[in-house]
Amino acid sequence: MATIAMATIALTVEYDGLKFCGYQSQPNVRTVEDELKRAISLALRDEVPVIYSAGRTDAGVHARGQVVSFSTMRPPSDLNQLVLAVSGLLRPDLAVTQAKLVAEDFHARKSAQRKQYSYHILNRIAPPVLDYGRVWHVSAELDLAAMQEAASSLLGEHDFSAFRTGPAVTKSSIRTIFESEVSRVGERVVYRVIGSGFLRHMVRGIVGTLVQFATHQSSSSMAEIISSGGRKSAGPNAPAHGLYLDWVEY
Amino acid sequence: MATIAMATIALTVEYDGLKFCGYQSQPNVRTVEDELKRAISLALRDEVPVIYSAGRTDAGVHARGQVVSFSTMRPPSDLNQLVLAVSGLLRPDLAVTQAKLVAEDFHARKSAQRKQYSYHILNRIAPPVLDYGRVWHVSAELDLAAMQEAASSLLGEHDFSAFRTGPAVTKSSIRTIFESEVSRVGERVVYRVIGSGFLRHMVRGIVGTLVQFATHQSSSSMAEIISSGGRKSAGPNAPAHGLYLDWVEY
Repeated sequence: MATIAMATIALTVEYDGLKFCGYQSQPNVRTVEDELKRAISLALRDEVPVIYSAGRTDAGVHARGQVVSFSTMRPPSDLNQLVLAVSGLLRPDLAVTQAKLVAEDFHARKSAQRKQYSYHILNRIAPPVLDYGRVWHVSAELDLAAMQEAASSLLGEHDFSAFRTGPAVTKSSIRTIFESEVSRVGERVVYRVIGSGFLRHMVRGIVGTLVQFATHQSSSSMAEIISSGGRKSAGPNAPAHGLYLDWVEY
Repeated sequence: MATIAMATIALTVEYDGLKFCGYQSQPNVRTVEDELKRAISLALRDEVPVIYSAGRTDAGVHARGQVVSFSTMRPPSDLNQLVLAVSGLLRPDLAVTQAKLVAEDFHARKSAQRKQYSYHILNRIAPPVLDYGRVWHVSAELDLAAMQEAASSLLGEHDFSAFRTGPAVTKSSIRTIFESEVSRVGERVVYRVIGSGFLRHMVRGIVGTLVQFATHQSSSSMAEIISSGGRKSAGPNAPAHGLYLDWVEY
C-alpha cells in the first residue's frame, strides 16, 4: 500500500483591499479567500477544501503580508513556481509573494504569535493622488506628540473592548500590544502596531481615537478610554483603506 | 486710470502619469496641461491663456512635485483656497498641492535650478499588487554595488546624448548631475537623481542601463557609454510608470 504524503504549505499574500468584499468567503461577492482557493486548486491540480488565514481583514483593508495555510496531497516540487503559477491565475489586485513548506500541524491563525498592522494618513490640504485609495486623508493639523503619548498608553496587556465594533467573535477581549508607534515622513503620518492579536475593527478604532488626541478633541485619557471598556468613549473607526496587515510572525 | 495688477502664481502639482497622455497639450487626448488650464481658469474666473511647466513629462510618468506657473489679473486672496478650488475641479488623478505668489518674471521652466527624479523598481518574483502601475517589476537578482558604481559615474557635467531618445529639442545636450544614488528598502530599489536638467527620456535611459549593470549584462563601462554619445551602447529605456518627478528647485 502506498503512503500518501500530505504537505502543509504557507503562502504570504498581498492584496488591494478595495477590490474585495473582505478576506472571508461570502456568496455572490468577490473575496480574497474564494479567489485564492480557486487559484491554488487550479495551480496544484488538487481541489484544496479549506485554507486558513492569519486574520480575516475587512472590505477595504489591504495586506502586504497576510498568511494563509492549507494541506495538499500534491505539493509542488518548486515553491517559486507555485508563487508564479498562483499569482498568474489571479488579477493584479491579489498575488502570492512567498511559499513555504511548513510543519504538518501549522495553522495560519492558531500558530500566529505576533502581527503588525500599519495605518497610513495623508496629512495635507490637497486630496490624495498617487496614494488614492491607500491612505486616509486628514487635512487638520496633527499634534504628533499628543498622538504618540496616547499610542504609548496602549502598550502591554489590556482588555481592548473599547475598540471593538460588532459582536464578540472570540472568548477573550484581552490582547497584548508590543509596539505602538506614530511617525511622520513628509505629508505621511504612519501608525504602526504590533500585537498578539487584534479584535474586530480594533486598529481602526484605535486610529480614530488617536486622531482625536492629535486634534485635541478627546476629553478622556487613553487609559480612561481603555478601562471604560465601552465603544462610546473611543473615537469613530478610521476608514478601512488606510489600514495594512504588514506581516505575521510564527 | 486704474492700474491693472498682474500676479504670477506657481503651483506644485501631483499626478498619476498613467491616466494622461503626457503633460503637454495635444488634440483629442487627455493631458495634464489641458486639465490644469481648464481648472485654473474656472477657479479664478479668468481665462488663463498659457501655463508654463518645469518639464514636459511623458505619458505614464508620475509627478509628486511638478511645478507650473501662470499670470492672472485676478489673483486669489487666499492661496490655500486656490489649492482646494483647483483640486476640487479635477479628477482624483491630478491635484494642486501648493500655491505660491512668485516674482512677476518667474517662469516654471526657465527659472528652474535643479530637479529630482526618482525611479522605483519592485525587485521580487511576484508581480506588483499594491504598487501596480507605480513601479517597474524586475524579478532578476540585482547587484546593487555594481548599479551604484555605474550610477556614480554619471556625476558631474557630461554630454548625455547617449541617453536621449528622439530628436534633440534643446540646443545643448550637456547637463550637470549633482546626485545619483541607488538604495534598497525591502523589495523596493529606488534610483534618485538630481540634475540641472534632463534630456528627453534621459532618466529612463539611465535606469535601463543601470539595470544592465545590476544584472551583469553590460560589456562597456558607464564612462564609455557616456563618451560614446550613441544611444546604441546604452540600455533600453525603463518603462515610464516607474518614474517620478519629485521636486523642482528655484
